[in-house]
Amino acid sequence: MRIKVYGILILIIVLLSWNKIQAQNKILVFQTDFGLKDGAVSAMKGVAMEVSSDLKIFDLTHEIPAYNVWESAYRLQQTAQYWPKGTVFVSVVDPGVGSERKSIVLKTKSGHFFVGPDNGQFTLVAQSLGIAAIYEIDEAINRRKNSQPSYTFHGRDVYAYTGARLAAGIITLDKVGHKQPASVIVIDYQKAVYENGVIKGNIPVLDIQYGNVWTNIDGDNFKKLGLKYGEQVHVEILHADKKVYEGDMPYVTTFSDVAIGKPLCYLNSLLNVSFALNQENFSTANQVFSGPAWKVLIKKISE
Amino acid sequence: MRIKVYGILILIIVLLSWNKIQAQNKILVFQTDFGLKDGAVSAMKGVAMEVSSDLKIFDLTHEIPAYNVWESAYRLQQTAQYWPKGTVFVSVVDPGVGSERKSIVLKTKSGHFFVGPDNGQFTLVAQSLGIAAIYEIDEAINRRKNSQPSYTFHGRDVYAYTGARLAAGIITLDKVGHKQPASVIVIDYQKAVYENGVIKGNIPVLDIQYGNVWTNIDGDNFKKLGLKYGEQVHVEILHADKKVYEGDMPYVTTFSDVAIGKPLCYLNSLLNVSFALNQENFSTANQVFSGPAWKVLIKKISE
Amino acid sequence: MRIKVYGILILIIVLLSWNKIQAQNKILVFQTDFGLKDGAVSAMKGVAMEVSSDLKIFDLTHEIPAYNVWESAYRLQQTAQYWPKGTVFVSVVDPGVGSERKSIVLKTKSGHFFVGPDNGQFTLVAQSLGIAAIYEIDEAINRRKNSQPSYTFHGRDVYAYTGARLAAGIITLDKVGHKQPASVIVIDYQKAVYENGVIKGNIPVLDIQYGNVWTNIDGDNFKKLGLKYGEQVHVEILHADKKVYEGDMPYVTTFSDVAIGKPLCYLNSLLNVSFALNQENFSTANQVFSGPAWKVLIKKISE
Repeated sequence: MRIKVYGILILIIVLLSWNKIQAQNKILVFQTDFGLKDGAVSAMKGVAMEVSSDLKIFDLTHEIPAYNVWESAYRLQQTAQYWPKGTVFVSVVDPGVGSERKSIVLKTKSGHFFVGPDNGQFTLVAQSLGIAAIYEIDEAINRRKNSQPSYTFHGRDVYAYTGARLAAGIITLDKVGHKQPASVIVIDYQKAVYENGVIKGNIPVLDIQYGNVWTNIDGDNFKKLGLKYGEQVHVEILHADKKVYEGDMPYVTTFSDVAIGKPLCYLNSLLNVSFALNQENFSTANQVFSGPAWKVLIKKISE
Repeated sequence: MRIKVYGILILIIVLLSWNKIQAQNKILVFQTDFGLKDGAVSAMKGVAMEVSSDLKIFDLTHEIPAYNVWESAYRLQQTAQYWPKGTVFVSVVDPGVGSERKSIVLKTKSGHFFVGPDNGQFTLVAQSLGIAAIYEIDEAINRRKNSQPSYTFHGRDVYAYTGARLAAGIITLDKVGHKQPASVIVIDYQKAVYENGVIKGNIPVLDIQYGNVWTNIDGDNFKKLGLKYGEQVHVEILHADKKVYEGDMPYVTTFSDVAIGKPLCYLNSLLNVSFALNQENFSTANQVFSGPAWKVLIKKISE
Repeated sequence: MRIKVYGILILIIVLLSWNKIQAQNKILVFQTDFGLKDGAVSAMKGVAMEVSSDLKIFDLTHEIPAYNVWESAYRLQQTAQYWPKGTVFVSVVDPGVGSERKSIVLKTKSGHFFVGPDNGQFTLVAQSLGIAAIYEIDEAINRRKNSQPSYTFHGRDVYAYTGARLAAGIITLDKVGHKQPASVIVIDYQKAVYENGVIKGNIPVLDIQYGNVWTNIDGDNFKKLGLKYGEQVHVEILHADKKVYEGDMPYVTTFSDVAIGKPLCYLNSLLNVSFALNQENFSTANQVFSGPAWKVLIKKISE
């Protein structure tokens, strides 16, 4: 009798714990260039809810500029690290939809999953988080029921569906399709390097709401200039190797260290070197934008 | 003793299953023309959370152009089918707020629920999903407590409140109010028809992010033209019976089948005939927009 | 034996009820001026999910105009009352980030929690909901692990992290930091007053989607004018004490009581006096906007 009672108790605990026992964390994060004005994002979420109503669904952004694979890559890198291990990101910025690009799931060494077309948008998470495994999605098995073979809205019928099944623990990674070599399609850009007193880097993205310019130069590289807070740097910004901006500004810790409207150099929330005007828009004021073709050069001003 | 233990076990299973036993699936989807810049949508969600914190709340879109009942109708039709049976949609595009329009709950034959003013916005889901039942909301019983009878923000105090109670299973459909005849207020538009080698239809909506033009002509109707992939069609687009666009383009399966900037005819993600420029904006380039007054004519180009 | 079985039953009920027993309601609402185009909001939500995946996360708005602390204050006041007691609001509109403003948690007498910089954005909820207690956030204990002491993105590393821990019931209010006196930084503005047949007030905010002008004059104050529905009022609107608009309009209950394009005076969804053009934009038509510097004067037109 006593054994029976304990058996029941264990059963109950198992039932209560079931969600935790399953492999994934049930968190699904969507990114697209669809905008929020029509029903496309909602249809994707509906498909995910149909797969499992236990999923916790979030948005990274749906305001990636249309077809901008590079910005998609940057937004994934900017945010993935802050989400728990096991989170599944579905990213659909897909200028080549219908052409030959592969549909993949990338698992990074950090334990995050990325679902979408392999068209360059996984460049930066692959480099920064590391590739644990890549599977090509087999659409013969991982496509929404009743979606017509003759035409498929991949974001909804393949990526949302597969991402939801993976996040819900209905399938494991190896059930996605065929395992691939550990490399993704990569977009070329100026990596952060220090040479002869000058640091070179790229402008992957703007802090768009405020018009601040974010580089890919991390704080450790920047230390090689041997700057103290308050010291001046000389900055050049080039687009396709043509100079767009040149100027001096102090390296400071907070915006309010300079007057309103004045330029400053600081470390942003990713601890990367950035340029801003205090309470104004550096980007529009200087016509500096972002993407793989943008390059920055920074040196300390010698006294 | 053994009986008692089994009794307890059953009780536990009932407790664990309680959410599933209730009638609804707890999924609540909001659509409005409120935008996301103020607190109106958030107030609606707060009211829903006050009703039941077990609800899973989503957005269709809040960017319906102000007072555009037609676009509201289209967005509901575009997405409802992808959400699970039992999902409750609260749609508040309400140019006649305070006037005599009825507040209703429409249950479709597909098992979805639609809550909001009966002002034309249910035209398309009623036609495509079928009417199972319609109830008028009795505001004497289905209005948020403490909302003043003298003035009511219907989106928050009636529609969000009633939709949340329905989705949470606190009320069943017949507790909404009085049952109505099975018809909704309908907006007139050109239905898809084939006559003498020409297909006529309407432009219900744009694929706004990309400027693609979506018609209401489904693939089955389109087949009557006897086209093969790659063959040319002749397209005329009229607004209020005045010609706005005329041109030829191929019928293809993917955007990349034509050069960048060239027009194409394709089946969109709803398997409806659509027009686009590859990686450019057909709508702004040709000043073609959407709504009940827009008409398209398509014929095969004879060789 | 019987006792043992009942003991187990009680244990089960406790397990089932555990979420409810904890102090908070697990609802976390974010407001920022970050916009939705980049990854900042998503990073905040990722941090919250890392704290507890049981949280229910919502948005108030992320479209507060950059650095507009006043509008932040208004949006909190507009919506907080509709959310359940125990809801935690994280509001990050922070022009002085990095300067000396305090980071606080405000608990109001209504049982809501507000987390963010104390820079004026809590002016209106403190006045309308009442201050129950204020704690300064001690960043030595309430800052995300692995966020560098040398630089902190407060929205993500302090406010989202602390708000999530509070909402999840991981910490109680008194574990936030040191208790503070019961006052917040306050922004000055024209309070609603009645004098000699004239009501004065402020325009805290626009109903931005429609261009309606919302004042802070509540219905009870407005009654002092002794108006009946349909009677005319004379309205003056001033910016920094300079007249911007002057005109007459009827006091009505619904927009459709006046012709399209005509002005009206009505009580909005917060039961405050508001001005609108029926189906047109009062704000842009008359160049009337909102903020602490805007003042309105209303009197009854004598017959």
